[in-house]
Amino acid sequence: MAIVTPLTEKFGLAVPLLLAPMAGVSGGALAAAVTNAGGLGFIGGGYCDRDWLKREMEAAGNTPVGIGFITWALEKDPTLLAAVLTRRPPAIFLSFGSIGGFAGRIKAAGIALVVQIQSVAEARLAAAEGADVIVAQGTEAGGHGGSRATLPLVPAVVDAVGAIPVVAAGGIGDGRGLAAALMLGASGALCGTAFFASRESLAHANAKQAAVAGSGDETIRGSLFDLARGIDWPEPWTMRTLANGFSRQWQADLAGLRTNLGPEQARYGQARDQGNVDVAAVIVGEGVDMVRAVEPAEAIVRRIGADAERLLDRAASHLSR
Amino acid sequence: MAIVTPLTEKFGLAVPLLLAPMAGVSGGALAAAVTNAGGLGFIGGGYCDRDWLKREMEAAGNTPVGIGFITWALEKDPTLLAAVLTRRPPAIFLSFGSIGGFAGRIKAAGIALVVQIQSVAEARLAAAEGADVIVAQGTEAGGHGGSRATLPLVPAVVDAVGAIPVVAAGGIGDGRGLAAALMLGASGALCGTAFFASRESLAHANAKQAAVAGSGDETIRGSLFDLARGIDWPEPWTMRTLANGFSRQWQADLAGLRTNLGPEQARYGQARDQGNVDVAAVIVGEGVDMVRAVEPAEAIVRRIGADAERLLDRAASHLSR
Repeated sequence: MAIVTPLTEKFGLAVPLLLAPMAGVSGGALAAAVTNAGGLGFIGGGYCDRDWLKREMEAAGNTPVGIGFITWALEKDPTLLAAVLTRRPPAIFLSFGSIGGFAGRIKAAGIALVVQIQSVAEARLAAAEGADVIVAQGTEAGGHGGSRATLPLVPAVVDAVGAIPVVAAGGIGDGRGLAAALMLGASGALCGTAFFASRESLAHANAKQAAVAGSGDETIRGSLFDLARGIDWPEPWTMRTLANGFSRQWQADLAGLRTNLGPEQARYGQARDQGNVDVAAVIVGEGVDMVRAVEPAEAIVRRIGADAERLLDRAASHLSR
Repeated sequence: MAIVTPLTEKFGLAVPLLLAPMAGVSGGALAAAVTNAGGLGFIGGGYCDRDWLKREMEAAGNTPVGIGFITWALEKDPTLLAAVLTRRPPAIFLSFGSIGGFAGRIKAAGIALVVQIQSVAEARLAAAEGADVIVAQGTEAGGHGGSRATLPLVPAVVDAVGAIPVVAAGGIGDGRGLAAALMLGASGALCGTAFFASRESLAHANAKQAAVAGSGDETIRGSLFDLARGIDWPEPWTMRTLANGFSRQWQADLAGLRTNLGPEQARYGQARDQGNVDVAAVIVGEGVDMVRAVEPAEAIVRRIGADAERLLDRAASHLSR
């Protein structure tokens, strides 16, 4: 038994599940493990560290994995795209910025263009600019994102973009979420938080343990950690993380953080290197309630797929005739 | 064909759908129409205007409808509960505050206690205090609410509260949302926005038209309209509405609104009476993308039910064997 959707048919998947290209977390080993388990892995190209990206693409070996970019970061280093296209990944994933300068080159290379959006208006734009797959990301997602929520965003995007396959992202932590995404009209789901604590994830071991222990009740969305990391993220995107001591100190006082920026950035960098998660951000979303152990990514993909299959197979049992 | 869940069995429903008790919008006629179509209607007891509530309970006639209260408002006028209990509604709905002072009396009267929560921690508390049904409300909901989103909140609440039926609320605008809610483990859905523009809704005709024209991309969550209405809402709850001229003026400048409060409250009150929706709040959630016409509530209930039934009936067609 397997779920078949336009997404699984497009990429030849056994499970309609994409790995979110989490910057610094989704490396080659994790992306390859997701692909090998029947989904499609994406390496998190993030802020375009060439050496890191080259190393992680090599770590994926011959397993086909996609590459994800933060679009506004790629705009600052656009030649990186050509280097990646020569490796012929099955898909390029763009999020957070205008895809206009890249869409044509990706499509001309015969590589699938996956575009993540955070509103219906952006979905319409992505469709017009040639997206082959549209990822509709809700605000409950970990990491950067927008303000709309997954459950109402997905059907509105499906209605807006015609025949383009839509993938639901944000808050999907298990097979229930994947089955729900399909009911909403999506062709699959994209998960980040579900893999943050996977064995292959490049997150610090302490961050993985914080994810296992954390609750979706304890996540926040804001800009303070970007300030602490010295990354100048453009509006309107903000980042969801677990709350911690650092966020409780500064979340409501960004001006105070700016006043103390030098020492606080130094303290933050040290904490990140040391895995001190009371200062460094644990970048997960509300789906963290469903993260209960550090597991191999293969086990996560297979469980999400099997649980969704069972729910779909039994869905008609909710009906009396 | 009909959907059968613990919720439909508890209340004898043909469709697992509850009407949100929207203050000033969900009157007796709307609540009765939802019940008569196979769901369960709730009158919005709101801020405990006795004359309004008495009139609307009478407007529901002999049709069984529940009564919803804003819990912190009921605490200021607790004798109202006794007056309502004598009418033997099928359910009392409490949201936004501590239910401890009311749960025992409602349950002793043999009336179902429906409790709406906005986090997993609150769900655990509601379960411990005797809730018969728990409504897990996501931040995408219209009107007052919290910060967690429906899609990840519902399965986490289902896992936390054992055998108590959970109802999903927030962002559910059509049969796709109801089917998704059932996949998440919920026993049904609660809809407000879907009925805001119904024929029987007490919303101003201009507000209904604004809902039909509005997009989920254009909603905001904040406190400015409570300030403008002179309602002292406690933290942490905020209200989701469509953005309009008034919100664009004041959303980022609550201090400025406070400085001009007298004249702005007068302007707001006049605008509300006149149906000027560029000033007065149109209190809907992100599901407003799915609101496309002013329709009888009966048609909405039947369409949501039939579409969800069809999706569940065909869910297994996503599977290859």
